[in-house]
Amino acid sequence: MPGIVECIPNFSEGRRSEVIDQIVSAIESISGAVLLDRESDPNHNRSVVTFVASPDRVVDAAIAAVKKASELIDLNKHTGEHPRMGATDVIPFVPISGVSMEDCVALARDCGERMWSELGIPVYLYEKAATRPERENLAAVRKGQFEGIRDDIGSNEARRPDFGDLRVHPTAGITAVGARPPLIAYNVNLATSDVEIANKIARAVRHQSGGFRYVKALGFELKDRGIVQVSMNMVNYEGTPLFRVFEAVKREAARYGVAVAGSEIVGLVPQRALNAVADYYLQLEDFTEVQILEHRLAAAIEEAER
Amino acid sequence: MPGIVECIPNFSEGRRSEVIDQIVSAIESISGAVLLDRESDPNHNRSVVTFVASPDRVVDAAIAAVKKASELIDLNKHTGEHPRMGATDVIPFVPISGVSMEDCVALARDCGERMWSELGIPVYLYEKAATRPERENLAAVRKGQFEGIRDDIGSNEARRPDFGDLRVHPTAGITAVGARPPLIAYNVNLATSDVEIANKIARAVRHQSGGFRYVKALGFELKDRGIVQVSMNMVNYEGTPLFRVFEAVKREAARYGVAVAGSEIVGLVPQRALNAVADYYLQLEDFTEVQILEHRLAAAIEEAER
Repeated sequence: MPGIVECIPNFSEGRRSEVIDQIVSAIESISGAVLLDRESDPNHNRSVVTFVASPDRVVDAAIAAVKKASELIDLNKHTGEHPRMGATDVIPFVPISGVSMEDCVALARDCGERMWSELGIPVYLYEKAATRPERENLAAVRKGQFEGIRDDIGSNEARRPDFGDLRVHPTAGITAVGARPPLIAYNVNLATSDVEIANKIARAVRHQSGGFRYVKALGFELKDRGIVQVSMNMVNYEGTPLFRVFEAVKREAARYGVAVAGSEIVGLVPQRALNAVADYYLQLEDFTEVQILEHRLAAAIEEAER
Repeated sequence: MPGIVECIPNFSEGRRSEVIDQIVSAIESISGAVLLDRESDPNHNRSVVTFVASPDRVVDAAIAAVKKASELIDLNKHTGEHPRMGATDVIPFVPISGVSMEDCVALARDCGERMWSELGIPVYLYEKAATRPERENLAAVRKGQFEGIRDDIGSNEARRPDFGDLRVHPTAGITAVGARPPLIAYNVNLATSDVEIANKIARAVRHQSGGFRYVKALGFELKDRGIVQVSMNMVNYEGTPLFRVFEAVKREAARYGVAVAGSEIVGLVPQRALNAVADYYLQLEDFTEVQILEHRLAAAIEEAER
């Protein structure tokens, strides 16, 4: 099956790098799975691994990683700042190219079903794969963490896993598996040292306090530069595009007499998110991505190879 | 050798489609050459063929096309509205990915040398491959066309080809071979029916009359929409980027009390040109294209395949 899916499993281990080495090796043992990134945080005691694969391989690679993590991580011995409920804590599937969100929801279900049947690890489906609205939000699903869920799951019907019995795995806990759009970490810097202005603007644009649906935002000081920042997570750049939020921040800042010093994208950004920015500011009429030379090229090369 | 070069040979035949069929077949007979587009204009009696190939194949494909064109096209029998001097009139090499302009200049020289040594067709190098400033401009090189150059070349040292003797090929004429950046056909539409405003703005932004170095521009009426257009060729989008010209047109239009209705990209646009627009309008700090997910992906997949 053609297409590319990104998978970003989070593991409850950020100190023993040899454990993450073995998990990464398990992923890479699946032909066609390609590691993009790995990051471990010792304070959080948590690691985030990013890989891509075709839709027919990505679940195999995820299962291989979950199996290895369940052999090497015991949640009863785990402490760290970041909330967690499983050795493999969360597994999102993200559509990158040639696959739909619905495809990724199906992959999440397939992965969850196999985690229970093959490894005995129960699973909650979350975000776009959620089976009830209250499970769309990962923080709500994970409330109480490993210990709380372990003690509560047997007597609380609301805790029933989407796959599995009414108990957690004794050492590997329970895992959230889901589908979501790519995240963009996007910050706008303001030419002022007054962090209260950044906080006010963050509240104006974030969903939680009445702002844009797919924006999470906080105000921060950048002490070394003597300025402040509206730091955001764009959790669905098609629903809430970069340019709309940037313009809103600019207008709010102007109201306080503050200029925008610039903005920054931390880490990776999907090409389509930037193309939407170009389309908006140039007021392009009838533009489609098929007009991008590289798209035509890729299509022609694919055609020629067929 | 990795990398992708675009090659857009222009042939002096726009009426007999079987001739272009055979030229295209010659190009496609070279393994790895991929046809992107072909367009024939009967009034101009001219065809433009667009293909891509790796740097070590692109000259082979160009030579195959030139050879076929020289067998099938006799310039002594050619008439059409578009100026021309060769059966293959002009061959630009354009860097697309993984190759530099200098690489394309070297390819143009290699192609020109082989056209003379293998096919007896003399060559002028033009644009970035030009060996003298007065040959950078194709129109200047082609002045007098086939008939004028044929009669003049023997006695005019300024006409000496970069490859070949002081005479044109008796039927295939002489060809301009060069290297250039990708062109972008870019139009800005104005909410007025007064074409004089479009003309004034075109003169303000085009190089010829004091505007941006890499912009050619004309004013046009869009009668069916009752508006006018500043129609542009962006001949070097890195030297003169889209957003700078768009902003200049917007400011000039405001001076006449006219709003910008939108802009349009006709045909293909390189991804990098759009990324520069997003970077500019979001005022991105320290952004590099390496942050685009698709770039990371392509690099990781290439690495994995090695």
